Amino acid sequence: MLTQEELLATQRRITNYIHRTPIMQSSLINNIVGVDIYFKCENFQKMGAFKMRGATNAILQLSPNQKKRGVVTHSSGNFAQALALAAKQQGIKAYVVMPANAPKVKKEAVKGYGGEIIECSPTLEARESTVQHVIAKTKATFLHPYNNYHVIAGQATAAMELIEEHSDLNAIFTPVGGGGLLAGTALAAHYFSPHTAVIAGEPLGADDAWQSLQKGKIVPQQNPNTIADGLRTSLGDKTFPIIKQYVKEIVRVTEQEIITAMQLIWERMKIIVEPSSAVALAALIKNKQNLQYQKVGVILSGGNVQLSNLPF
Amino acid sequence: MLTQEELLATQRRITNYIHRTPIMQSSLINNIVGVDIYFKCENFQKMGAFKMRGATNAILQLSPNQKKRGVVTHSSGNFAQALALAAKQQGIKAYVVMPANAPKVKKEAVKGYGGEIIECSPTLEARESTVQHVIAKTKATFLHPYNNYHVIAGQATAAMELIEEHSDLNAIFTPVGGGGLLAGTALAAHYFSPHTAVIAGEPLGADDAWQSLQKGKIVPQQNPNTIADGLRTSLGDKTFPIIKQYVKEIVRVTEQEIITAMQLIWERMKIIVEPSSAVALAALIKNKQNLQYQKVGVILSGGNVQLSNLPF
Repeated sequence: MLTQEELLATQRRITNYIHRTPIMQSSLINNIVGVDIYFKCENFQKMGAFKMRGATNAILQLSPNQKKRGVVTHSSGNFAQALALAAKQQGIKAYVVMPANAPKVKKEAVKGYGGEIIECSPTLEARESTVQHVIAKTKATFLHPYNNYHVIAGQATAAMELIEEHSDLNAIFTPVGGGGLLAGTALAAHYFSPHTAVIAGEPLGADDAWQSLQKGKIVPQQNPNTIADGLRTSLGDKTFPIIKQYVKEIVRVTEQEIITAMQLIWERMKIIVEPSSAVALAALIKNKQNLQYQKVGVILSGGNVQLSNLPF
Repeated sequence: MLTQEELLATQRRITNYIHRTPIMQSSLINNIVGVDIYFKCENFQKMGAFKMRGATNAILQLSPNQKKRGVVTHSSGNFAQALALAAKQQGIKAYVVMPANAPKVKKEAVKGYGGEIIECSPTLEARESTVQHVIAKTKATFLHPYNNYHVIAGQATAAMELIEEHSDLNAIFTPVGGGGLLAGTALAAHYFSPHTAVIAGEPLGADDAWQSLQKGKIVPQQNPNTIADGLRTSLGDKTFPIIKQYVKEIVRVTEQEIITAMQLIWERMKIIVEPSSAVALAALIKNKQNLQYQKVGVILSGGNVQLSNLPF
């Protein structure tokens, strides 16, 4: 289990390699929602998402020998870009296994950060066997996008920064996909702001985390159907127990609620966030009747969207 | 002519009623353009554009009697919203003459800020006669969107803030439409950073300012054709002489160059700017061969766009 000291050490370790992202407020959104909201803008993080924190922390804890051999992951999302950039910053090789049918724009982003893409068929088996093949050939170290304590500790630092500046939050809302950000945020609140409730937003079309909490065991996500492309993954055996213990509630939101919240952020705050980020605000809006929450943090997880394919 | 003391007094006068907007940098855009760029983010200004500065300054200088009777302008753009909000902040009535065919979203924005809309036919004559009618009926004070020294002085404060934080800029780029922002920026540089060249970007499809400088007299804009909807207006007899005296150059850019610059800002900086703002960056990109400009300010004039109608 990650300790308070390990989170503090993580923050010191990665601070020179990431942005301390701004915390923004919108009086217009506060008036509409009726809550005093502090947005932690990880869309302004390096490579455009909080994933840079966890990837950086995991890479910095490799041994010199591991660093020589490089790292490998499978992801078609933000973690692929984060690992490529974090590895590049440390002069390390990054191999990224991606389905051959992944969007060209995502492949190019990984290449742009210096990552080497290894394509595979779009199945879980092909993905895992391709990773094994890369490891056999290169002896690279596998880094999971979220089910890894070093990654979780890195993701915790976003909430740690938010809590440092605002010690009196009633709640922090994050989205939940694989649970790295949510588990990290829950640990950060547990250790550094125990009066702050941690609540997650999750798309109804990919509600495996909500179901997992209901059943008390991991329910894998089957056939996710949501615009929030960062939240289609299942919880892992390292993220689930933390979430089960420390997260107060998971609030499910519809696709329309996600799009409405996303449009609110774009139009009123003039910043670009991806649909997954809007899920956290959508959950807050759905949950606002709860008068306990008058001063609330919302982690805007990232801003990587394809401008030619917007839901407005 | 506006003096240095008047600009300083303007800054003191409006400071409590506007946002001091952030200055952002993007290492990705710096690498692409090859210039060290400081973006002054007026898209984060109240109501989403620098126009709030000039409107606030003009309203604060009304006499008590004028304040009682209210203000009137004709605009279908950002100045209409700015005047409505600035008037509301001071408890003053604002009448806005708009063509009946103006986009519903713009009318609703003005109403949302408490302005009263008076519709007219979409001709210059109808607009001016309707304004006269409002004045006859209400004795409201007419405030021109840009051809007004109080408005120009207000717009100057964006560059003043930029210069306060970065005294060593080689150049500042702004867009030019009616010339309020450009004239204000030119005066700010003249008084507070005389080594800083002021350069404007202008759409080729609305290049009346460029033509006016070529001919040495105001050439009215006929049939403007550009996506940059804030830049379709003509220079005025108060903005032109300042621009003629203090602006180094006007760089004309194509529609494609505007869209490319806009996309660069959206994708790399994760912030929303309107096409008019992108014109300033497009002009810098077009002019970057000029090695004099290694540390440059760009004023991002606003962020009010209709998300359902994007050029990407």
